[in-house]
Order: sequence, then structure tokens, then C-alpha cells
Amino acid sequence: MLTFDILEYQERLKKTKARMAKQGVEVLLITDPANMNYLSGYDAWSFYVHQMLIVMIDEPQPIWIGRLMDENGAKATTWMYDENIMSYPDFYVNSEEYHPMQFIAEILTEIGHGNRRIGVEMDQYYFSAKAYMTLLQKLPNASFIDATSLVNWVRIVKSDQELEYMRRAGQISERAMQAGIQAIHTGARENDAAAAIYYELIKGTEEFGGDYPSIVPMIPTGENTSSPHLTWSDRYFEEGNAVIIELSGCYERYHAPLARTISVGHASDRLERLNQIVQEGIENVLERAKPGVYLEELEEAWRESTRRYGIEKESRLGYAVGLNYPPDWGEHTASIRKGDRTVLEPNMAFHFIPGLWFESDGIEMSESFVVTNQGAELLTNYSRELIVTSPYHFPTNSQGIIS
Amino acid sequence: MLTFDILEYQERLKKTKARMAKQGVEVLLITDPANMNYLSGYDAWSFYVHQMLIVMIDEPQPIWIGRLMDENGAKATTWMYDENIMSYPDFYVNSEEYHPMQFIAEILTEIGHGNRRIGVEMDQYYFSAKAYMTLLQKLPNASFIDATSLVNWVRIVKSDQELEYMRRAGQISERAMQAGIQAIHTGARENDAAAAIYYELIKGTEEFGGDYPSIVPMIPTGENTSSPHLTWSDRYFEEGNAVIIELSGCYERYHAPLARTISVGHASDRLERLNQIVQEGIENVLERAKPGVYLEELEEAWRESTRRYGIEKESRLGYAVGLNYPPDWGEHTASIRKGDRTVLEPNMAFHFIPGLWFESDGIEMSESFVVTNQGAELLTNYSRELIVTSPYHFPTNSQGIIS
Repeated sequence: MLTFDILEYQERLKKTKARMAKQGVEVLLITDPANMNYLSGYDAWSFYVHQMLIVMIDEPQPIWIGRLMDENGAKATTWMYDENIMSYPDFYVNSEEYHPMQFIAEILTEIGHGNRRIGVEMDQYYFSAKAYMTLLQKLPNASFIDATSLVNWVRIVKSDQELEYMRRAGQISERAMQAGIQAIHTGARENDAAAAIYYELIKGTEEFGGDYPSIVPMIPTGENTSSPHLTWSDRYFEEGNAVIIELSGCYERYHAPLARTISVGHASDRLERLNQIVQEGIENVLERAKPGVYLEELEEAWRESTRRYGIEKESRLGYAVGLNYPPDWGEHTASIRKGDRTVLEPNMAFHFIPGLWFESDGIEMSESFVVTNQGAELLTNYSRELIVTSPYHFPTNSQGIIS
Repeated sequence: MLTFDILEYQERLKKTKARMAKQGVEVLLITDPANMNYLSGYDAWSFYVHQMLIVMIDEPQPIWIGRLMDENGAKATTWMYDENIMSYPDFYVNSEEYHPMQFIAEILTEIGHGNRRIGVEMDQYYFSAKAYMTLLQKLPNASFIDATSLVNWVRIVKSDQELEYMRRAGQISERAMQAGIQAIHTGARENDAAAAIYYELIKGTEEFGGDYPSIVPMIPTGENTSSPHLTWSDRYFEEGNAVIIELSGCYERYHAPLARTISVGHASDRLERLNQIVQEGIENVLERAKPGVYLEELEEAWRESTRRYGIEKESRLGYAVGLNYPPDWGEHTASIRKGDRTVLEPNMAFHFIPGLWFESDGIEMSESFVVTNQGAELLTNYSRELIVTSPYHFPTNSQGIIS
């Protein structure tokens, strides 16, 4: 059931240990499910309970510790020996008396790592304040180091196999976008469009199935286009509505997000104009994306392109993307914004999403791209013209809808 | 856009403040998205960045603080005055230099709450170790109190309106289960069944649309039935496979989970037998579920019912359920297990899921129920006989499949 060759996992582990050495970390406690997956292969929806992958700088294999009922899943999906899979009894779950980190601290002490320099992912969803305080209390002889994003930074340059998975995710994104657009008309509700999108996201293609994306499809409609993270309601679409679709196909936990804006029937001049400005900005940025360029130069290209139209964007323009679990598909490393001095390298991948949100409307258009020696390789192939659908039952097959 | 009457939100706030007073908390910092929603109405997929609802014991309205781009969404979905919606600039997001909790601590100090008794949700997905350490550092005159699950315990007894939403979720669960079962045959892949399930989950009914569930549908198949949290692959179903479906419909973030086990073609005697044992156990437990009963008595009823067959279950049998966000639909309060002395009250709701997992197989069957004066009211109506489908193209319309 391994998703990558075992040599690839070992290569990742090697790079992780090199970073650990550099940051003075002897034992790394990994709680980010994407980082756990990246190094071990572990893949299950069990991150709602405490679990951990322990990387010791002087041991050839990590140790997985999770809940007893998830042990079989860890044995099935990871490359490590079965004796490196350990589990805590169920009474530790959702208890006010016991905490899984007590169990983990005891294991660390028993195997002789209780007094080492321990790296923890301090700012990560699945490492709670209580988890940290429990480790501090149970491991008084350890010293703790903030290792947030240590593994995330290893992940930023993808292998060819990872990129292949992202291209597959991109194929799924295109299909889901098309299904969503075709489901938008005045006879349908927002959730009907979301259902059509979800069906394609999971069905995938004849050759490969889709995985669940780390963020649900967003379909803000009408006034709600002014707020990017509202999910769907069961209101019917109305003629004249603008609708934003932001979604991502997913394959083996790898993503290729894509956003477009749709007008239900005749588009306002304002929306047409905004779409042109964003389109032009995207083209200008993509032209600049080459190895050796600082990430902030892409922001500069955007600013140059759009300021002549009086557009100012407060929020970042995008972020590194790839492997992830809910609640985010972003990698939490480099961002496309002023001040980010990350140098573009081949096989890095980004979701470039220069969304604009105003008082009562907004627009989103995005591209996921890989940095190659030839420039930006897009992970999806979808027209950037404003998408105008017929408000009645079936959208015309006009521009924007690739069939 | 409010999901409940404003009076209901104010009633919830009142109950929360009563608990705060009892626990000596003057200011409660809420980061659990379900608790934020419960008290304010806020509903958006923005919990992947830091955000907070602040309840002050002596102020009539909470304060929402989140990311600038989510401010419009907060204004649209909450009942509070616009001046109680505040936001931090985008440079705080995914930064190694700035942390949103710095901003929040400054606000707390400015409005005179920097030196009070502050409750924090210590063991919660969206309150990271770093978030806590930042608050400790920036609010040296505050005293911090662990208020994990303070609001969750208020949520355990539902209002009639909440139960109505859970019944709607139950209707969606039934439809999705049926769609999943009908999609299981040797001409389909696991992801095809997941796609069919997702479509129904989001489409909902003609009267109301579905919301996204907080956990994806689980479809462990064959040997993977030994591990409850493996998600789907794109392998084809095979004749003789056992398949577990665990899913939940969702309406306005309220859930009604449901699990069943299916045999693709003729079922093994072992699976038939296990299904009977679990079925009998469930009946015996549901009969005991009445106001005034301790939760651990339900576990006792299960143990009595199943030990004569040599069955021992290590893990808990279920948990309180209702409103939630990814990654969990459980409420993180009461569990159906030995030692849980929660007394059943009318309008409490539970997901009772006595799953059994062995070395290379497993079985799951579950019911979501509400405690009423008449006993347990089921949120779904689905046969508990073992479901046997035809391995070829279309399942027979035999027992287990309600059409």
C-alpha cells in the first residue's frame, strides 16, 4: 500500500535529519499529519485524536504512536517495521484524567530519549497547548526547541513522483470546476453545485480515483463573494449573481487548487473589468516565475501590473502547496508576498491566488504552478476569461467552459 | 443569515457565563470553531488561521477577532454588532516573525482585560502550543485557567431547534448510506462509492441542502475493515469483500452519524454471526437509554449482552454528538464507557458505535440517538440486518436496502 518507493521515504528522512542537526534537534516529535505521512506513509483520518511520529537523529526508523484502534492502519500504510508501531489504550481518548502525551513521554523516557534536545511543532493544529504542557511536565530533563515547519521546509521541493501526483490532482480540479460551472443556474441551489463538484473530486478519472481535498469547495455567491471562506448554503442561484468557485482535486493527499469567477447571466461591467485586470496580473506574474527569482518579486510583478488600475491588495498572493490534510492545503512555508525572500527552485509548487475582496463583492482567479527550468508549468488548463453561464437550466457552451 | 433566533444565542451565552463564574473565569478565549459558532453564529472555513471569540463575563456581547479577509464573513453570519468584529492584518498569517496572538493580546490589554482570570481551551485543535506561549508572554498580568470543554458541556443538552437540525442530518445520512450501498459492486471502485455518498450528503433533500460533514465517509474494505479510520482507495470491490460504511449527514453543522457493514455477495458465517451479536447488543443498550441513567450503564448493558459470546471491547462505545467542524463530529464531553458518570438528560444526543476490530477484519454498526422521556429516539431509520449486495452491477433490493 505504499504511495512512494521506500527509498524516497528514506531520502526524505535523511533530509529531515540534516535539518534537525542544523537546528540542534536530536529527537523530533511530529504531529502534523502531512509531515507524518511524508516521512512514514501513514494515511488515515485519525488525526482527531493525539498521535505522533518520532524521528530520532541516530535511529534508522521513526516510531509511530497512536490510538490502539489505529495500529492496524499504521502497519498497513507505513514502511516501518511493526515493532516501531506503538499505541495507547482507549481510556486516554477525550479524558479529563489522562492525556496521550503522558503515555508518549513515558515511552520516550523508557527508550532513553527523555533527556534530549526535543523538537516540537509549536504552531500546528494537532499539537495543542495541553499536549505541550504535558510533555514539559513529564519530561523535566528534556530541552524543547520550536521545530514548527522543519519538515514543511523539506517538503517545499517536490520529487518527480510527487509532481506526477499533483498533475493528477490538477486533472481532477479541471473536471470538478467544469461540473460546478455546469451546475450553476437559477434552477439549482448552491449545495447542488457543491454536490456536483464533490462527485467529480472523488470520482476522479477512469485511470485514478480522487482523494478528499483538505478544504471543501468554496462557492461564495452574490454579496458573499466579498468573503472568501463562506461555504455553500441551500439558496437558489439568481440571475446576475457572481459566483466564485475555489476547489482542489486531490490525489494521494496532493493538491492542485483552482479558482474562477462566474457570472450567472450577463456580467456587470465592473466584474468584466476586474476579471481583465486580474487576468493581466496573473499573466505578468507567471512570466516572472523562474528558478533564481525571489518570491517577493512575483508580488512586485503583481503590484506593477495592477496599481495602474488603482488596485491594492492587502493579503498575500499565494503560498507553497502540495501534500496536506484538513483544515488546509497550504504548506505553511513560503508565501507570495512582500518580504518573502525564498528563492524559487525547480520542483517547488505554489497556489497563486490573487483574490480581491471589497465591501460587497469580490473576485478570485487562481493557478497552481510548478517551477521548472522553462518557467511556470501550470497544473491545470482552464480558460481565464470571465465565465458567463446561461441563467436557465443549462449553461451555453461558450467561452470559459472547456468541454 | 442567522441559523438560530438571537434569543437562543443569548441563552447559550448566559449558560456559558454561569459556567465561567463557577470555574472562576472572567474572560473566556474560545478557539474551537464549533464553540465559536454555538455562541456567535460564525460559520466559515477560516479555522485554518488563528481566530477567536472572546466572552467577557461582564459584557453583553462577545468579540470576534480573525483575519481581515474573514471580517465580512463574520459580519454576515454572527448576531453581534459590527464594532465587536475585529481583524488582524494579513502579515500575521503563516509568519515566523508575527503571531496573531500578539495582536489579540494587545486588544485584550487595550480594552482592560489583560490582567484578568482568562480561560483558554488548552486541549483543542485550533489552540496551538505557540498560541498559548504567546499569550503567556504578552499578558504577564493575566492568570490562565484551563477551560477546555467549558462550552462543549453547555452544548451537551440540545434545544428543540438543534434537534430538528439533527433530524434533518439523519434524513441525509439515510440517503447517503443507501447511495453508498448501491454503488458497491465489483464493477466499482471504493472512490466511486465515496463519490456517490458525497453527492447525496451535499445534495440533501428537495426541502433542505446538506452541509459538509466534519469527517469524510469512511469505507474500509476487505482487510482494511480491521482499521476504522482508513479512507477510500481506488481499488475495485471484490466478491466476498466486507465493507464498512461510516458517514454522517450534516445540516447547519449538526450531525447524525450512521455506520453499517456490507458483504459484497455471500457473507461469511463469521460476519453473519458478528452482525447478530452487535445487533443484539445495540438493542439491549438502546432499551436502557433513559433520563436518569448513568452513561456507564449503557456500557454495562453492552458488556452483559456480548460477553456470553466471548466479545470484549477495549475502546469506548460512543460519544456525545451534534454541532462540529473538521476534524471531528464528536463533542469531546461524555463518552459511553466504564467510569463515565454523566447522567442522561432529555435532549442529549449520542453516536453509539460499538465497532469491533480484529487482526484482519472488523464490523461496525451504529445509531445516533436523542434521549427523550420515552427513551432513545433514533435519528436515522435503517435496518440493522447484515447488508448483502449482489457483487454484480446492481444490488438486489433485498433486506438492508430501504428504498
